[in-house]
Amino acid sequence: MKIRYSQITVIPGNPQKNFETCLSAAQRAKNDGVNLLILPEMTIPGYMIGDKWEESDFIDDCEFFSNELAKEADENFSLIFGTAAFLESITGKPRNGFDGRKAKVNTACIATNGNIQYQFKTLLPNYREFEEPRHFFNNLTASLTPGDEEDRLMFDTYEICGTKFGVTICEDGWDDDYNLKPFKILKEIGADIIVNISYSPFTAGKNQSRNRHFSNHAKTLGKAVIYANGLGLQNNGKTVFCFDGSSAAWNSKGELIAHSKMYEEEDVDFEFVNNELLPAKPLQYKETSEIEDIHKTLIYGIRNYMKQSGLSRVVIGASGGVDSTLAAALYAEAIGKENLLLVNMPTKFNSQTTIGIAQKLATNLGCWYTSVPVSESAALTRRQIDGLKPTNAKGENIEINLSSFNMENVQARDRGSRILAAIASAWGAVFTNNGNKTETTVGYATLYGDVAGFLAAIGDLWKHTVYDLCRYINREKEIVPNEVLTLKPSAELSENQAVDKGLGDPIIYPYHDRLFEAWQQWWNHAPLADILQHYLDGDLAEYLNHGEKTELTEELIKQNFPDAKSFTADLERWYKLFKGMGVAKRIQAPPIIAVTRRAYGFDYREAAIQPYFSRKYLLLKEKAIFS
Amino acid sequence: MKIRYSQITVIPGNPQKNFETCLSAAQRAKNDGVNLLILPEMTIPGYMIGDKWEESDFIDDCEFFSNELAKEADENFSLIFGTAAFLESITGKPRNGFDGRKAKVNTACIATNGNIQYQFKTLLPNYREFEEPRHFFNNLTASLTPGDEEDRLMFDTYEICGTKFGVTICEDGWDDDYNLKPFKILKEIGADIIVNISYSPFTAGKNQSRNRHFSNHAKTLGKAVIYANGLGLQNNGKTVFCFDGSSAAWNSKGELIAHSKMYEEEDVDFEFVNNELLPAKPLQYKETSEIEDIHKTLIYGIRNYMKQSGLSRVVIGASGGVDSTLAAALYAEAIGKENLLLVNMPTKFNSQTTIGIAQKLATNLGCWYTSVPVSESAALTRRQIDGLKPTNAKGENIEINLSSFNMENVQARDRGSRILAAIASAWGAVFTNNGNKTETTVGYATLYGDVAGFLAAIGDLWKHTVYDLCRYINREKEIVPNEVLTLKPSAELSENQAVDKGLGDPIIYPYHDRLFEAWQQWWNHAPLADILQHYLDGDLAEYLNHGEKTELTEELIKQNFPDAKSFTADLERWYKLFKGMGVAKRIQAPPIIAVTRRAYGFDYREAAIQPYFSRKYLLLKEKAIFS
Repeated sequence: MKIRYSQITVIPGNPQKNFETCLSAAQRAKNDGVNLLILPEMTIPGYMIGDKWEESDFIDDCEFFSNELAKEADENFSLIFGTAAFLESITGKPRNGFDGRKAKVNTACIATNGNIQYQFKTLLPNYREFEEPRHFFNNLTASLTPGDEEDRLMFDTYEICGTKFGVTICEDGWDDDYNLKPFKILKEIGADIIVNISYSPFTAGKNQSRNRHFSNHAKTLGKAVIYANGLGLQNNGKTVFCFDGSSAAWNSKGELIAHSKMYEEEDVDFEFVNNELLPAKPLQYKETSEIEDIHKTLIYGIRNYMKQSGLSRVVIGASGGVDSTLAAALYAEAIGKENLLLVNMPTKFNSQTTIGIAQKLATNLGCWYTSVPVSESAALTRRQIDGLKPTNAKGENIEINLSSFNMENVQARDRGSRILAAIASAWGAVFTNNGNKTETTVGYATLYGDVAGFLAAIGDLWKHTVYDLCRYINREKEIVPNEVLTLKPSAELSENQAVDKGLGDPIIYPYHDRLFEAWQQWWNHAPLADILQHYLDGDLAEYLNHGEKTELTEELIKQNFPDAKSFTADLERWYKLFKGMGVAKRIQAPPIIAVTRRAYGFDYREAAIQPYFSRKYLLLKEKAIFS
Repeated sequence: MKIRYSQITVIPGNPQKNFETCLSAAQRAKNDGVNLLILPEMTIPGYMIGDKWEESDFIDDCEFFSNELAKEADENFSLIFGTAAFLESITGKPRNGFDGRKAKVNTACIATNGNIQYQFKTLLPNYREFEEPRHFFNNLTASLTPGDEEDRLMFDTYEICGTKFGVTICEDGWDDDYNLKPFKILKEIGADIIVNISYSPFTAGKNQSRNRHFSNHAKTLGKAVIYANGLGLQNNGKTVFCFDGSSAAWNSKGELIAHSKMYEEEDVDFEFVNNELLPAKPLQYKETSEIEDIHKTLIYGIRNYMKQSGLSRVVIGASGGVDSTLAAALYAEAIGKENLLLVNMPTKFNSQTTIGIAQKLATNLGCWYTSVPVSESAALTRRQIDGLKPTNAKGENIEINLSSFNMENVQARDRGSRILAAIASAWGAVFTNNGNKTETTVGYATLYGDVAGFLAAIGDLWKHTVYDLCRYINREKEIVPNEVLTLKPSAELSENQAVDKGLGDPIIYPYHDRLFEAWQQWWNHAPLADILQHYLDGDLAEYLNHGEKTELTEELIKQNFPDAKSFTADLERWYKLFKGMGVAKRIQAPPIIAVTRRAYGFDYREAAIQPYFSRKYLLLKEKAIFS
């Protein structure tokens, strides 16, 4: 039999459009004599749609279009695709979910000639950005409760052209942390081959891990595995995810026999002969580097976020620093130089160095460039506000005085909320947010100033990745002005941040980047007490480097923090910002394109609460400093 | 035996502090000869702490302080209180959650002399702002998987002073939508009395529903019920929840015998004699009105959000419209007139009427007042940006031109991000967001302009509730200037919005308020097709009023929308804004204090996707317009 997966693009929340995409794929497959077409998980509804899952008319449409698609099946052609449906529509039995609304399932449809069967997703992910049990019926939980035993629809096999297919959905294949092992069960009940339909977003390093994981499944069970993932851009409001496809297949020895490119639509064909899966074409796959994958992801993310939002033009505040420079290079590639306008907004604190970089950047990119100084407006604000004397009904008054720190923020807000916002709206454009993950972590930015913009394209990149990506972009020729790569990072908002004097940000990037990553991004977040203990033991750099080779050395740490007192003072300063002001700013920050496995927003969820220092840390600190 | 519940205040994410509060309560109870002290759910860790649940050192501290508290138990004194713990610490068996981290439980500790027993929460809510299965081990799911049967720790009874206590946690008592019925099980296994420890936030109407619900439980089972809820302010970033207490008890006939006031700390004592619960004091409880409850909640929310954030002063942009007026009245009450500064920021479009209202408001409140015009800055922006000609490397250029609509937004941003932000930072204050739920729904506001500020105190109030609350605040004397209650709502950003000519917002509040509520707030969201069908049937007002008496009449709808074409044009216009621009603005909007059962943010979750019109709606519309 001839099997195909189609790596297609899914639009979130548009069953009509997705049906049309699937229908084309089905028609192509039939024309090509394919017997079984495999399409991704949730291919009709899309996946990240917030609480739209609660809208019954939306689920009605998913059911309607799924049924329409299933009608394409005939005696020579079957389909496996993912959709959402009411449980009642499948079982005929009324049943509510735990939220009191009609229960829904995330299901695979196995459509054969005149018939549809359903295989529900059983392992429902509920971490990071995933929250499927919020919306979907869980076989496991429901089956335990009295009267529900019969609803326990677990795994079955589905016979197509004499072959028994085991059908799993995404997380069903990632069973390490579950005692229930779907792949193993499917082998036990006689599956000849196992299909995993997915709709899984890009995360740096995930493809490599997936390849090992599914290869291992195939080898261990001695069954071929087809992994069919979708493409697209979806979001949960605060966090934007790029679904990269990278669909693949392994034969029963666990050998990779097909691997689709990231972010490219593709039909991939196989024969299933003598219980073995054979690719129609020889494998053409070259493992890519992480930075290359991140680059592709950001370009795809920017391009499609703009497209989905009906936007074409972008204004970027180009300071001549590395972050806005990288952002400009990415946007120029994603949307075209003719749609990009760089605006340099100097004050007296900005150096000719950074202004020069901004101009050179515009020249390198061939985009539009202009300069709008903020000094006049800052002076107006000072004139209007400084010395202002509000009164009360008794005739008493208070006096408002702007400090130089207040004036730094006035300038930052003037750039974002006045100049960039006005230029963008006038040009029919939007303006970008250029914050990186390091400064986002500790809120080293001004709300409504640099914390503003329609999208934070590099908001999930640590500062060291910002530099790596600039160097990657310059791999063939200089696009990012080389000067920016050696410049001291600085906000240039006061004399104390003069880049030409080597002054700048208070963040020691080689150290703080890794520290913040350990706090925020490690799956098991690094406890403060462990960090302090490693500092005391003299192996903190090794601990924070987490097996990677980085610029962080034990010497660098010792140099900057000669004793426990200076070390803990710095640690607590940044921890308080991370858990305090940083959270407050992130609540109102623009959406971030996720590339790591903990992006701020809907992946890494936060409450605005007072920072808390654990007992163990406080005891250790006391001992280290006072004894 | 003497039983007490203490309605105490819980701080999110601070086990040390919460332990101290509990310890005081325990010492009071021992002094008063109490045999059993009942404290709320999650009383040691707090409840809404985002993904801080993933931090192992935090859970370690919860365990440490829970054990410390349990040591207070002696031969005459026991405690029941809520906390979080690693499953392994309780069972001694290593066990991971589905996220691969060490499994945790939301549990009650039953601490008796030298002994602690644990009763896990079984029904874990996973809707609205709740997402307990994300973090906590679920008895039900785990028990089904091979090898896990023994982990199935379901309900037991706990004997204290010869009485068998059934212990439930919050959702365990709200079993309508679950087939598993904890209260019924507890009766069957011999509980003499049932305790429900909770940490449940205020939602308009919930107390009334809870009283009916638990009364019914008690009556049906013939067992007394004690409901012990906590106080406090907690948030999930975008949404702020007020935990109102309202702890209560019912005897075995289902009669209410005790009811604590909202937001007030209280120790309430009972005797348990002959299988009946007797209050130490006669019941003193008067049911309160919904608007009174909302008022109390907002005052509590404002006061405590500021306290938790270490803030004392507030600046409000007082336009003379009803929203900022209400906000000012609430803040004056919550934080004191001396901490409140009203700033009127007129342009040429602002009427003397609204300026007069703002001044009168400041006089009524006795707070600080000043005026900062925005005209000069708007002119500067026009001068700097209008006609700007960015160039590219080839010497070509484009021209930037500000439209009058662009200038409306320039003014709005000037008020929020320039003037209010600068004054607030200079005064050591923050500025407020005064958006109501109606305008928030459709994004009728300017990002970084009126969509800015540290907290949206009235962001979960529909426009009609804004008026109701103003009238409630004026119940004894005029605080809110009466003029504002009859003024046409208007943004006053152009000639077309002149209030003195009766011009203003494009929103027809009596209709759109109810329409938006049906879309967003109804538990089963109103489908567009149903709305159109009711319009065609002439009973849309009845449908949208949803059993309430409101200003919306069939006549008003007919008057504004004489035919299906005008009706659907309006419907689609607002629906697109609700699902489109509205979402984009809400992503970056300040946190909202929740009062309804669907607050924007972390309760009602959203993705930025293209609005979708269902097949059924489109077909009905076509039929209605063209046939």
